[in-house]
Amino acid sequence: MSGEELVERFAEIEGVAYVVLYDARGAVVAHTFAGGIPDAQLLPVRRTRAVMDLILADPELSREALQYSTSEGYPPLRAWLADHMGRLGVACGADNVLVTCGSQQALEFLGRLFVTPGDTILTEGPTYLGALQAFAPNEPFYDTTLGEGSNATPEACRELAERTGGRVSLAYLVPDFANPTGRTMSRKARLEHIALARELGVPLIEDAAYTALRYDGDNQPSMLALDIDQCGDIDRSCIIYCGTFSKVISPGMRVGWVVAAAPIIEKLVLIKQASDLNSPLLNQMCIHALAETEYEDLATRARTTYRERRDAMLGALTEHMTGMARWTEPDGGLFVWLTLDDETDASTLLKTALDNYNVAFVPGAGFYPGDGGRNKLRLSFSQSTPVQITEGIARIAAAYRSLQS
Amino acid sequence: MSGEELVERFAEIEGVAYVVLYDARGAVVAHTFAGGIPDAQLLPVRRTRAVMDLILADPELSREALQYSTSEGYPPLRAWLADHMGRLGVACGADNVLVTCGSQQALEFLGRLFVTPGDTILTEGPTYLGALQAFAPNEPFYDTTLGEGSNATPEACRELAERTGGRVSLAYLVPDFANPTGRTMSRKARLEHIALARELGVPLIEDAAYTALRYDGDNQPSMLALDIDQCGDIDRSCIIYCGTFSKVISPGMRVGWVVAAAPIIEKLVLIKQASDLNSPLLNQMCIHALAETEYEDLATRARTTYRERRDAMLGALTEHMTGMARWTEPDGGLFVWLTLDDETDASTLLKTALDNYNVAFVPGAGFYPGDGGRNKLRLSFSQSTPVQITEGIARIAAAYRSLQS
Repeated sequence: MSGEELVERFAEIEGVAYVVLYDARGAVVAHTFAGGIPDAQLLPVRRTRAVMDLILADPELSREALQYSTSEGYPPLRAWLADHMGRLGVACGADNVLVTCGSQQALEFLGRLFVTPGDTILTEGPTYLGALQAFAPNEPFYDTTLGEGSNATPEACRELAERTGGRVSLAYLVPDFANPTGRTMSRKARLEHIALARELGVPLIEDAAYTALRYDGDNQPSMLALDIDQCGDIDRSCIIYCGTFSKVISPGMRVGWVVAAAPIIEKLVLIKQASDLNSPLLNQMCIHALAETEYEDLATRARTTYRERRDAMLGALTEHMTGMARWTEPDGGLFVWLTLDDETDASTLLKTALDNYNVAFVPGAGFYPGDGGRNKLRLSFSQSTPVQITEGIARIAAAYRSLQS
Repeated sequence: MSGEELVERFAEIEGVAYVVLYDARGAVVAHTFAGGIPDAQLLPVRRTRAVMDLILADPELSREALQYSTSEGYPPLRAWLADHMGRLGVACGADNVLVTCGSQQALEFLGRLFVTPGDTILTEGPTYLGALQAFAPNEPFYDTTLGEGSNATPEACRELAERTGGRVSLAYLVPDFANPTGRTMSRKARLEHIALARELGVPLIEDAAYTALRYDGDNQPSMLALDIDQCGDIDRSCIIYCGTFSKVISPGMRVGWVVAAAPIIEKLVLIKQASDLNSPLLNQMCIHALAETEYEDLATRARTTYRERRDAMLGALTEHMTGMARWTEPDGGLFVWLTLDDETDASTLLKTALDNYNVAFVPGAGFYPGDGGRNKLRLSFSQSTPVQITEGIARIAAAYRSLQS
């Protein structure tokens, strides 16, 4: 297929970085660093098959699994998640947990619950564009002054929101190995952002999609855990934690969760009920069985694989692009964030890269609520082997050089 | 457990008629005519187990099933649904189909797409309360002058909407075996309602949740099919058809669909993407395999079972309640709609019925967007055997008599 066709297909999905880049026959493009999705080879297919069979062989469980169920989620899974959060330092009960269809659904519900058209959402620029899409129906403005080293003050945030005729109603952060930058917030920055949210009286979403994927260094405390340390009780916390099984077990099962103060969960349950009644119970039972027996094993296997790929990508960037670009060095997650020279547009580079070098990435502009990111791009290392990564980065470097000559 | 506790638990779920009535130990209450859900004994557990195993044993399908996928839905399922709609007289292609997490999700998306706060939705009173819940976030007003024998005119509808400061933006009907009344609209009424929607220039949702469950008489044409006959092309139709596998295959899999003009589907796909990325692919693959091989068998089995139960309920009503109440005689679906004398409040009857007779139903008031239905109630015959139905109706009659003495 021609580069033109590929660019067109890619432009279509540019705003949707979690989708793999398919060619016209439905095959994945070679050397793609575009999709921020797990490697299909890591999916626990054999164990999923065994667990599904156990559930569907049981006369009672099977009928329960295929019937309508409660909007809150499968009780044993909610209980497991409460324990899991406890292991992350978050003291909570099953009443603080809602099971959702992936954490994307949680973000969409939270936007609906807290944001009125004209309100301002505080976040970083760049940030996860799926969150921007989830919040979009509520027509928010964005204040992107958050992030490590932010000097945002409640007064400045309020003032900016008032200038567009609204108020600050929500804050959104990906503190661990952020999408798209790969950066992690320090404990100090977490505490400052919690204080900011408290002073503004707004809920702060802690999107923990990548938290389980740390390759180096010590875990940073969850913002929800830090806030509970201060306020003494999750039911008084302003932090709303969104988690997912998509990165460690399976994205296709569509099981994510929200952990927050019980009054917030109660409102989200009503939204869930009106929106799709309940998440498929069979999927929740299956994820529960897998989580209970091998969450840590699966997380370890994912970390081992992705650590090697991150190392390959950082090594290849050093080898092929030193002096040509700057990039982040993430301690975890799936992404490296690359900054080109000021003159180069990442969309132009993508066209050349696809046309002449058969390699793909996501241009940076889509991750900004407003302007910005024109000369930046996101590289995902999750779906390629170290050899493919080394070759792919060499191709991007060659494409970049071809633009400069 | 005491009647008080049961009433309290029931009040909680009164607005949610699809939930079974559980007692405090999680057991289903005896003689419940409350939940409008399929009989768990009809769920194709054995076949689901076999199909799941086939998918998860396949090296390629299994990895695809557990990965992220496209927001539109599994292509073979979309194609099957286009064919299925063709068999119902609706000429359409896969581009006219979106797969959703049950038809509840379709209703919620459509409310979001078409309704702005202050708008008026045209519907019947009573109507499916899950639809009222799905539309509620968009803060609509309701004009309930639709239905068989309606004399609604475009002028009258417009005028009513203007009185509340808005405009008519959507119409919603359950033309086959409606929830809660069990009534079916005639061909003449369908044509009149299509003409009304066209004159008003608003989309009309045809909620076909129960269409496959006809026990007597000939199928009525789908409103979408009638509209295509007139306008010549689904892409010019104002009818939006919502279907579900929940009543024939399995509610727990959460697979429903929307069929409409391609430009509407394109907008719904963007909403789907922002809301939960995609429906679980494994579930879609499984439903597709079951639909392809045994949709008709499963529908026939459901019809045979429910026909017998409907007959038992109508027989028991004639035996025990003639002269005390009036009721509908549905040709299909899951519900009979009962009207008590003008003085009796169905909520009062429910309390007595639970307290002293261990039998449950749903009071009618919840199915009305505004006032109404105080002396009406919905009886579902889907989850009880003929013997249980006969006994349960006798108990309701006894409870009713105890109020009158």
